[in-house]
Amino acid sequence: MPTINGERLLRDLKELRRFGASGTGVVRRALTPIDMESRRWLRERYEAAGLEASIDGIGNVLGRSRRPGKALLIGSHSDTQPTGGWLDGALGVIYGLEVARALAEAPESSDLAVDAVSLQDEESRFLGCLGSRSFLGLLSPEDEAGIHDGDGVSLADAVREAGLEGEPRLRVEAGRYLGFLEAHIEQGPDLEDAGDRIGVVTTIVGLRGMRVLFRGQQNHAGTTMMAGRKDAATALFAFAHGVNEAFPEVMGERSVWTMGRVELRPGATSIVPGYAELDLQFRDQSEKVLEAFEGIVDRLAAEIGAKGKATVEVVRARAPIVPTRMDEDFRAHLQRAAETHAAGKWVEMPSAAFHDAGIVSGTMPCAMLFIPSIGGISHDFAEDSHDDDIVLGCQVLADAAASILAAGQ
Amino acid sequence: MPTINGERLLRDLKELRRFGASGTGVVRRALTPIDMESRRWLRERYEAAGLEASIDGIGNVLGRSRRPGKALLIGSHSDTQPTGGWLDGALGVIYGLEVARALAEAPESSDLAVDAVSLQDEESRFLGCLGSRSFLGLLSPEDEAGIHDGDGVSLADAVREAGLEGEPRLRVEAGRYLGFLEAHIEQGPDLEDAGDRIGVVTTIVGLRGMRVLFRGQQNHAGTTMMAGRKDAATALFAFAHGVNEAFPEVMGERSVWTMGRVELRPGATSIVPGYAELDLQFRDQSEKVLEAFEGIVDRLAAEIGAKGKATVEVVRARAPIVPTRMDEDFRAHLQRAAETHAAGKWVEMPSAAFHDAGIVSGTMPCAMLFIPSIGGISHDFAEDSHDDDIVLGCQVLADAAASILAAGQ
Repeated sequence: MPTINGERLLRDLKELRRFGASGTGVVRRALTPIDMESRRWLRERYEAAGLEASIDGIGNVLGRSRRPGKALLIGSHSDTQPTGGWLDGALGVIYGLEVARALAEAPESSDLAVDAVSLQDEESRFLGCLGSRSFLGLLSPEDEAGIHDGDGVSLADAVREAGLEGEPRLRVEAGRYLGFLEAHIEQGPDLEDAGDRIGVVTTIVGLRGMRVLFRGQQNHAGTTMMAGRKDAATALFAFAHGVNEAFPEVMGERSVWTMGRVELRPGATSIVPGYAELDLQFRDQSEKVLEAFEGIVDRLAAEIGAKGKATVEVVRARAPIVPTRMDEDFRAHLQRAAETHAAGKWVEMPSAAFHDAGIVSGTMPCAMLFIPSIGGISHDFAEDSHDDDIVLGCQVLADAAASILAAGQ
Repeated sequence: MPTINGERLLRDLKELRRFGASGTGVVRRALTPIDMESRRWLRERYEAAGLEASIDGIGNVLGRSRRPGKALLIGSHSDTQPTGGWLDGALGVIYGLEVARALAEAPESSDLAVDAVSLQDEESRFLGCLGSRSFLGLLSPEDEAGIHDGDGVSLADAVREAGLEGEPRLRVEAGRYLGFLEAHIEQGPDLEDAGDRIGVVTTIVGLRGMRVLFRGQQNHAGTTMMAGRKDAATALFAFAHGVNEAFPEVMGERSVWTMGRVELRPGATSIVPGYAELDLQFRDQSEKVLEAFEGIVDRLAAEIGAKGKATVEVVRARAPIVPTRMDEDFRAHLQRAAETHAAGKWVEMPSAAFHDAGIVSGTMPCAMLFIPSIGGISHDFAEDSHDDDIVLGCQVLADAAASILAAGQ
């Protein structure tokens, strides 16, 4: 089997880290100058590994294997959160590069085709998984025309600034791929807490998001008696507390829900709010649980609206993400490789965060591998993993890639 | 008894309205150029009424009677809210002017001394009731040194811009006043709803304000399981809903409470909030009820803090306002005058909003008279009252002023 070069892997990871380094973290938002610099560096690395490398019109970087036959696509994303950690996405990208190199170097796997990839803007400067959506042909020019970042910069302007205007887009080649493998840091504490070193992902959890709008009547906080008030905030507090009371009754083992954003208008200490907004999102591996949560939302909205103080409108805020099962066969390959290199120290687990594999799985078989996050910290400058876990994870991925490719020819 | 001149009263009210007129409303923030223009106009009006008029170093305008003997101070404030109504404060100021004129014109009251006043910045551009606090000697230069408006303009700079730097401050003359009378629009719907035309204020309600701080741990909304979360928003929702559940059990007939401002940090849909803030204020005529509310706040804070998910800190956000009883004797004079001019159409009622009389009552007897607000609307461009109510209220105030002064000589 192929053997990865741990030193080379860590060196490349640390080189990529320098693009946008900020203390222990990284700030490398999609399509910014430093992001484009890092993509040109990555293209060179792909070329040096013998791959046919290109950057497409949205910033996807593909290192295409020159070997004939069925290929595996391996990678992740190299853009970061606004205050990102150094491994989120980058780990999976450099794993793709190292697995391609390791397979090419081992005589028994040198004829196997690995395409390495960095998919643009997974972290949603413009649109979550923009690069994978483009690569799979899921975005029309009309879809892209309306997209702006949080500062109002249009995607088209950012593409022009990045020097990519008019560059062709890479599209998935029909029949080329056996599937897609993505490695990632766990972003949670479970592997570390259990003493495990590898997670084999079973499912990328589903997510539903909604914005709940409460409309009452703004009024004077001194002269408007309680009976006459239509206080939008009171309705919001009752709704939010109701969610926290009722969701546990139907939750699954790893269900999560979050109400991270509230807006009261006018938002003054001494004015009865006439309008209020609440964002609610929930995630689970099971559609059944997501349905049960949504049923509670609708019931609470109806109950609170029926009190006649504030109307309650539930707006489905984004396309729901359905729970995505990872490919059974790929998972078996990953499990065997994990057992070889970390006997008894690996576990099957869902991914609580979303990943490009959740998009790609609509087009081809996918699997994901996790390595432990120190302290479970992610989306933070403090994000880190131990070097030996980083090296181990890449070796497991290389083994699985080789065995999947060997079986698929 | 003196007879007020309704036409003259309405004409002066409408003239004052022109300073800062904006549609049906008025924008005349304390110490702005338009506010100073209106004060110079008011000084002329006081002079024309035979009063000895001056504008002091903070912008208070006093029309001092030239009659000997004990005097009544009558007025209110002529500054407005950022989007103010035309009668809030202005009504009471022009009532003071008209009562001074009406008493001077009637032979039986022409020797009685009425000082008319417009007290600066009741509406809190810099500090609520700044002018009355200054007039009563309640502010030290050190107190004033730190005061800024919401845009960061210091009080000292605003005073200089207004051309008042170095001007002396008016101070209450020891032994001069029998007391202070303030008329105001009701700012609520109760008089109109009941078909009453005059309200005689019993008490200016007390107010306590607090900011409740919830400190948890910011985290990833996907990978942090519910059991491991320290969600500051969850604690805030439980607290706020708890307030709305528990306060009704101890409330008085006219208790009000408001939670008009919430802040979640970082305030993102997909991040478990690590910090949250809630503003809570409550008002009642009775200290006992306010104490009971505060007891509930402390109990809820302790209960929610004890769950170990978020710490809860209750910060008393401003000096509490204690409920202020209006003077019994003055109220009796107002009641007799109301019964004379609006038999059976007046009522005793608390003031749910705060007024300069709440400050002045610490130094001398005070009483307040309300007239109906159309639709209960206030602090809004749509604020209005019927002309006949405006005229009636002034006549009642003039009668009461004359009888108080006659009895007090």
